[in-house]
Amino acid sequence: MSNRRTVVGVMGAGEGASAEAMHLAEELGQCISARGWVLLTGGRPAGVMAAASRGAARVEGHLVVGVLPDEGKADDRQNTADLDLALFTGMGKARNVINVLSADVVVVCGGGGPGTASEAAHALNGGRPLILLAVPALWWDFFCSLGEGVESASDVQECCRLIEARLGTVLSRAKAPPS
Amino acid sequence: MSNRRTVVGVMGAGEGASAEAMHLAEELGQCISARGWVLLTGGRPAGVMAAASRGAARVEGHLVVGVLPDEGKADDRQNTADLDLALFTGMGKARNVINVLSADVVVVCGGGGPGTASEAAHALNGGRPLILLAVPALWWDFFCSLGEGVESASDVQECCRLIEARLGTVLSRAKAPPS
Amino acid sequence: MSNRRTVVGVMGAGEGASAEAMHLAEELGQCISARGWVLLTGGRPAGVMAAASRGAARVEGHLVVGVLPDEGKADDRQNTADLDLALFTGMGKARNVINVLSADVVVVCGGGGPGTASEAAHALNGGRPLILLAVPALWWDFFCSLGEGVESASDVQECCRLIEARLGTVLSRAKAPPS
Amino acid sequence: MSNRRTVVGVMGAGEGASAEAMHLAEELGQCISARGWVLLTGGRPAGVMAAASRGAARVEGHLVVGVLPDEGKADDRQNTADLDLALFTGMGKARNVINVLSADVVVVCGGGGPGTASEAAHALNGGRPLILLAVPALWWDFFCSLGEGVESASDVQECCRLIEARLGTVLSRAKAPPS
Repeated sequence: MSNRRTVVGVMGAGEGASAEAMHLAEELGQCISARGWVLLTGGRPAGVMAAASRGAARVEGHLVVGVLPDEGKADDRQNTADLDLALFTGMGKARNVINVLSADVVVVCGGGGPGTASEAAHALNGGRPLILLAVPALWWDFFCSLGEGVESASDVQECCRLIEARLGTVLSRAKAPPS
Repeated sequence: MSNRRTVVGVMGAGEGASAEAMHLAEELGQCISARGWVLLTGGRPAGVMAAASRGAARVEGHLVVGVLPDEGKADDRQNTADLDLALFTGMGKARNVINVLSADVVVVCGGGGPGTASEAAHALNGGRPLILLAVPALWWDFFCSLGEGVESASDVQECCRLIEARLGTVLSRAKAPPS
Repeated sequence: MSNRRTVVGVMGAGEGASAEAMHLAEELGQCISARGWVLLTGGRPAGVMAAASRGAARVEGHLVVGVLPDEGKADDRQNTADLDLALFTGMGKARNVINVLSADVVVVCGGGGPGTASEAAHALNGGRPLILLAVPALWWDFFCSLGEGVESASDVQECCRLIEARLGTVLSRAKAPPS
Repeated sequence: MSNRRTVVGVMGAGEGASAEAMHLAEELGQCISARGWVLLTGGRPAGVMAAASRGAARVEGHLVVGVLPDEGKADDRQNTADLDLALFTGMGKARNVINVLSADVVVVCGGGGPGTASEAAHALNGGRPLILLAVPALWWDFFCSLGEGVESASDVQECCRLIEARLGTVLSRAKAPPS
């Protein structure tokens, strides 16, 4: 018996996020909370991270986690908006690795820049299921070329069905006796 | 306005923890939950980490967080006992830095080995308030010699009063407008 | 005046590297040493890392650096073949970030899996010049879509000319008075 | 057969270093280079790090390595004085872990603040031999209480004899066939 709650990571652009990506992220965050999953993002108050957190925080019983690059000085601690839990790593961009390893399923929402791409790559590298939500075709082609375990969704409902299906596999495997 | 919950980190020995340290840790974990704070530990199913988590998980409304050194493979995910949230870093001993930076106040319970000592040192290095609960005199002398912000408690009630006092200072500073 | 030597990072597949990629990596390593640059790789005794190191170690005056994921126990320390300097991080896949941040120019040789892709992404994310040597067209398309500063070479001579050109820019910028 | 060079890590205070500690560090750096070992420090242009590097750089054939907390932007790259090789980690204080894991033997010179204490603790935690050179008695008492493998020296000649002795053990163990 374990208390451990299921964690869904949502990654995407920060300052440069499109209105469309942020709209999707907000809806996705809300769906994640509504299903009782924990939302985990990179935690900065910008773009897809902020939108997903805002959506998730709207649902009762939410747990919104941000894994931040900075050291958590007094100023950093003010800037956490919709986060219930802020983890300060002081590790800069290496915190991207923690984001995906800590998630049971990773969703990349709307593509993004090289930071988001590094997270998608680390997800595959760490064996995490990766769902690409409304990303450019080039993202889909590229990450499929790198390995198995990539899926694609064009809207939030489809994305949540895919998360559910992948969690079924992941969590039953985690509960099986170690081989 | 922020949703961010207050985080108290509890550090101490793993496999080598004394019965006394584990007893204190369990009581401390329970007090932390009872006051509505989040408990954060190194998350391994051993010693002070496990005891504090067990105590905290007994109180309704608990949030018990573990920051783990490993990558979170299927086997790792089974081994999370009383954790509500397991963060997998894949960073080995460097996760000790995250433990203390993510805490608003750090408590070292009962001393420990070099891993625990590294956490106490990183707490001071990162400017986190450090409370030493029932540690050997040598620990008190050593960490006081390294800098300000160290306090000592001999029982859990005193420790919780010190946490409360320090949080008053820390959180009011975090809410003040940046200078 | 600084003693700091120029560092060229070479990234690519490990166990799954093609014969072609390893052949190129070996030639590239040799060229890097011959020009007096330091070679830096992920340091494991496999694939592109091992081939580049082998090539570089053949030239007098070489400095071959490996940044390794493991903790450097006695066994790890045996397994360093052509490395002059082995840095043990104990940080698993997060060491990929260090690989690219420590390089003045990053070369990805022959594409690779998600680990190599994470390094290319972190290179762009950290503002390092990125040269793609003999990679699949999809890699070129994808990384060009993420940002500026990507160049492509089809053979080692062209790659070394590009490194030289980029170093001219990078190093003169580093020597300019801070703005 | 391995090319790997022996690495001696020297840790100590930065900006707050005493004149005495810096004098010792400079002499120690010189001795390390003179014996053909690589000097590794935290790389910042201050205190014991800078003094040890300066001493080491004076000897022909030196290899002076700095493992830095920052990301290696253009300004960071200017600030490397006597370093032959600057590794940029972007990981802040977590780079302290890399410093000690990458060293075959760790010397703490003259004590220091909580950053130096974290390095001494991580050295013991990672199983690295730890030599305390001219530290306060409290440092000696504290680190001896944490585990085995701590030695003490009061001058640089004695310190270098201890390094040599420990390297004999460490390196012969590394060369033995894995058990």
